[in-house]
Amino acid sequence: MAAIVWWLITVVVVVVHSASARPIVLNWEVKYKFRWPDCKEGVVMAINDQFPGPTINAVSGDTVIIYLTNKLSTEGVVIHWHGIRQNGTPWADGAAGVTQCAISPGETYTYNFTVDKPGTHFYHGHYGMQRSAGLYGMMIVRSPEERLRYDGEFNLLLSDWWHQSVHAQELALSSKPMRWIGEPQSLLINGRGQFNCSQAAYFSEGGGLRQCTFKENDECAPETLRVEPNKVYRLRIASTTNLASLNLAVEGHKLEVVEADGNYVAPFTVDDIDIYSGETYSVLLRTHSFSSKKHFISVGVRGRKPNTTQALTILNYADASDSDRPTNPPPVTPRWDDYYRSKSFSKKIFAAEGYTPPPKKSDDQLILLNTQNLIDGYTKWAINNVSLSVPVTPYLGSIRYGLNKHELKSPAKRFVKDYDILKPPVNPNTVKGTGLYTFPSGIVVDVILQNANVLKGKNSEIHPWHLHGHDFWVLGYGEGRFRPGVDEKTYNLRNPPLRNTVALYPFGWTALRFVTDNPGVWFFHCHIEPHLGMGMGVVFAEGVDQILKMDIPDEALTCGSTMKLLMNRGRR
Amino acid sequence: MAAIVWWLITVVVVVVHSASARPIVLNWEVKYKFRWPDCKEGVVMAINDQFPGPTINAVSGDTVIIYLTNKLSTEGVVIHWHGIRQNGTPWADGAAGVTQCAISPGETYTYNFTVDKPGTHFYHGHYGMQRSAGLYGMMIVRSPEERLRYDGEFNLLLSDWWHQSVHAQELALSSKPMRWIGEPQSLLINGRGQFNCSQAAYFSEGGGLRQCTFKENDECAPETLRVEPNKVYRLRIASTTNLASLNLAVEGHKLEVVEADGNYVAPFTVDDIDIYSGETYSVLLRTHSFSSKKHFISVGVRGRKPNTTQALTILNYADASDSDRPTNPPPVTPRWDDYYRSKSFSKKIFAAEGYTPPPKKSDDQLILLNTQNLIDGYTKWAINNVSLSVPVTPYLGSIRYGLNKHELKSPAKRFVKDYDILKPPVNPNTVKGTGLYTFPSGIVVDVILQNANVLKGKNSEIHPWHLHGHDFWVLGYGEGRFRPGVDEKTYNLRNPPLRNTVALYPFGWTALRFVTDNPGVWFFHCHIEPHLGMGMGVVFAEGVDQILKMDIPDEALTCGSTMKLLMNRGRR
Repeated sequence: MAAIVWWLITVVVVVVHSASARPIVLNWEVKYKFRWPDCKEGVVMAINDQFPGPTINAVSGDTVIIYLTNKLSTEGVVIHWHGIRQNGTPWADGAAGVTQCAISPGETYTYNFTVDKPGTHFYHGHYGMQRSAGLYGMMIVRSPEERLRYDGEFNLLLSDWWHQSVHAQELALSSKPMRWIGEPQSLLINGRGQFNCSQAAYFSEGGGLRQCTFKENDECAPETLRVEPNKVYRLRIASTTNLASLNLAVEGHKLEVVEADGNYVAPFTVDDIDIYSGETYSVLLRTHSFSSKKHFISVGVRGRKPNTTQALTILNYADASDSDRPTNPPPVTPRWDDYYRSKSFSKKIFAAEGYTPPPKKSDDQLILLNTQNLIDGYTKWAINNVSLSVPVTPYLGSIRYGLNKHELKSPAKRFVKDYDILKPPVNPNTVKGTGLYTFPSGIVVDVILQNANVLKGKNSEIHPWHLHGHDFWVLGYGEGRFRPGVDEKTYNLRNPPLRNTVALYPFGWTALRFVTDNPGVWFFHCHIEPHLGMGMGVVFAEGVDQILKMDIPDEALTCGSTMKLLMNRGRR
Repeated sequence: MAAIVWWLITVVVVVVHSASARPIVLNWEVKYKFRWPDCKEGVVMAINDQFPGPTINAVSGDTVIIYLTNKLSTEGVVIHWHGIRQNGTPWADGAAGVTQCAISPGETYTYNFTVDKPGTHFYHGHYGMQRSAGLYGMMIVRSPEERLRYDGEFNLLLSDWWHQSVHAQELALSSKPMRWIGEPQSLLINGRGQFNCSQAAYFSEGGGLRQCTFKENDECAPETLRVEPNKVYRLRIASTTNLASLNLAVEGHKLEVVEADGNYVAPFTVDDIDIYSGETYSVLLRTHSFSSKKHFISVGVRGRKPNTTQALTILNYADASDSDRPTNPPPVTPRWDDYYRSKSFSKKIFAAEGYTPPPKKSDDQLILLNTQNLIDGYTKWAINNVSLSVPVTPYLGSIRYGLNKHELKSPAKRFVKDYDILKPPVNPNTVKGTGLYTFPSGIVVDVILQNANVLKGKNSEIHPWHLHGHDFWVLGYGEGRFRPGVDEKTYNLRNPPLRNTVALYPFGWTALRFVTDNPGVWFFHCHIEPHLGMGMGVVFAEGVDQILKMDIPDEALTCGSTMKLLMNRGRR
């Protein structure tokens, strides 16, 4: 067997300068490149020829200026800065059709925003299925007052990977009848996976695959985590999967969860963590006192019947020799449909001490029923019977300039009373729409996400919902149908965690609360890219009176009716 | 064997109304669709769900108004009306980056133009490799004074087809080192071919493929040409191939060539015709007096070493029964590298009687050397050492508004004297550029296209050059290096054919002449899509003083610096 070459992740030295707002100026170009993400050649979206894109390292308070140039041949592009609240700069949020027009080929858009909050964040494409195509990277915002103590850190950006092009996948999903894209061919850790071999084939757990051998500079060779004994390491983990819900474990080591979505949580220790698309975690890993060898880190699929091999990388103690292999097999990913286990992980997460609790009462309440639907034979997802169809003109521009009022409609605030969430739905009234809810500034909004049965058979899927522009408190999870006036009493109002992404579990509900303190237009959607593409999202407009006064850069609105309006200014 | 189902091409009834300018108003939507163009499923660009796109049937003098809506998810789109001169409407020519900005997803662009000249034309995408993706269709402009007499007609739109997506192909071609896309998997006649079987397998000429059997409504079943005995049929043939030079023959029948690129030619009779990408022909076919059976129509590759099965369809006499098969095998395509034969076909083409001969002298002369080059390791094609890089702002807009003067540069009018066209080139000075030549109105311009050896080995390829906005006279073809002051004397100034596309043969030259009577900006380029993508083109700006007065619709210029200018009008 050829020698396995292990690749080192640079351990970021945790030194943080003072919180003065320095500008971080980046010139980025987006292009397609041929790469071997999982030891099979494919086409990825790269930034400055890098896949995944470059890691942004910032300090809270920094101004980040990214000149993003679209070097694609025929496609538009945007980048969303996932976890950054964009206070005062909603046009920098990077959601195509919501906060800006897609950047056309050859054009440069300036993302200029402040990273006000420390935490583990990431960024990704938010147009078509460009996230699934590989347009993503880590974004670490450090705090000058870091309260965690650790000796080194590693970034683990998790994703899933298909061999079919995203263009063909997108067409498949939007065809009549819909063609499902299936489970991913591979899971990637920092853009690296192995489709046709296993690093653990020498155990029976290898699944019948051959043992991987890597050549120098192999793009699919895993990045190894090189550690010293008796130290504490922070693993910053983010999931930008297209579809997969994941579970991560480090063989022979416990994980202490300390951060979720950029917020400290009351530390708790587990053997493994669940992580849904759109979530980030920091976990602390204490290395053994004995300088022992190598251990597998495994990432496997949960929440859907898996058909994808675990992604593996190695925790590599300093004195392990290159030829050593882990002596224990990779951790087994917990059973995919053990939802009790999934929920009990979620329910362990509470805000760390020092966080202000949420307001005791809400001023408004949405109860959003998630249903799978058929509209004219096309498979769609809908929220309160409206399947989101993002309009040509970005909401932010339409609202700023008072355009398209006829098409910007609100779905109902609650779903119909007699809807049976346990049965396959009958939804003759489901329509496509713009799914816009409008809120005044400074109020407290509760959103209850309500899951239901899918179109066929007895089944309900996990949906990780992500809110742009905000953190929200996760007030609670429940089984079955939400009972207004009753289930509110079960809310945790003492120490609920602040997050920007939360899972909605099968046949259950999830309640969250936020304050409309960020004027702008914010996407709120299932972070599973095909679900969003099939309409599973809504849009929150907040503080419209302040949006009307915003000086939105013209370059954000070079499409649709805002373009026509701006071009005609000089003619009137 | 299952019964073969033959599909009928509707015989268009040749009845033409008077030449009053009626408007033809079309609402078109461009989308990707799954189709089976060659009996293997692939993704095509469809117009109103049709592939190939709908045939436009117009009468000379008609106004055609097409509201083209981009229903793609993330890609821009344009359509070029190949053979239409766009006199007075250069912004309707549909060349992305030259005469307009690409139409963004969700937007509608209005193509509004007059079809001033009768003839066999077509239309196709002109952005990235969208033509190769299947964005094309026929455009027939009839004359109220048709001088040809025939009993029926058929359209044969020829194309080539790859199984790899055009996105991956485009990336391959623009990679370093360049990856060649190879020969097409199939040739298509009206969007139908057979990759994995042959209609002629029952002859030894079937090439070892199995006999095709077609089910009802098979998208890859050939359209059969149903004819009566003792009649004259007009075959309107257009080639929109990405790469392939083609040869078409009808077994047992002669072809009388009567039209080329929308101009009548002095009729001549041949066994088969060569047709290059961008060309159109009409040929008259006289059916036999005996009502005899079926005959193969074959389309094969010439000019490149073929690796693609002939496309076949059937000339089907009225009383042939469904179960009859052609008794003779398909015509054999002439040897691919018999360039003497290719040139002798081209040299048979003269203008029909009644055409005005070209002006006797020219006012300006370009000698354009076609070379294959390396720029920083990227394979490019260059004209007089400039490899075309189409700018973000369309030329038409830049010139109209006096923008980007620094980047709009002219290559040399002639190539360096000591360039050896017979040897692999050494071109250290090749650069990317905008390749813009500017001419005043009302002058006579000669262009000599000069071929040369490619980068490696002893080889020179055929390049079919297409000029937008004009027909030109083909004054002559020559071998080797053009000798200024000498070879002009060999020009045919008596009855050269008028065309918009002409072949440049290996190691030779081709001379053409046109009059700058159409103010606008006109693309002039090799019609092989990968060659154009690698820089093989120039741009002619004509009558700049008149462009400066043009009322170009804003919607043509919603990109680059024209967009910024138009948006800022109101702010100044």
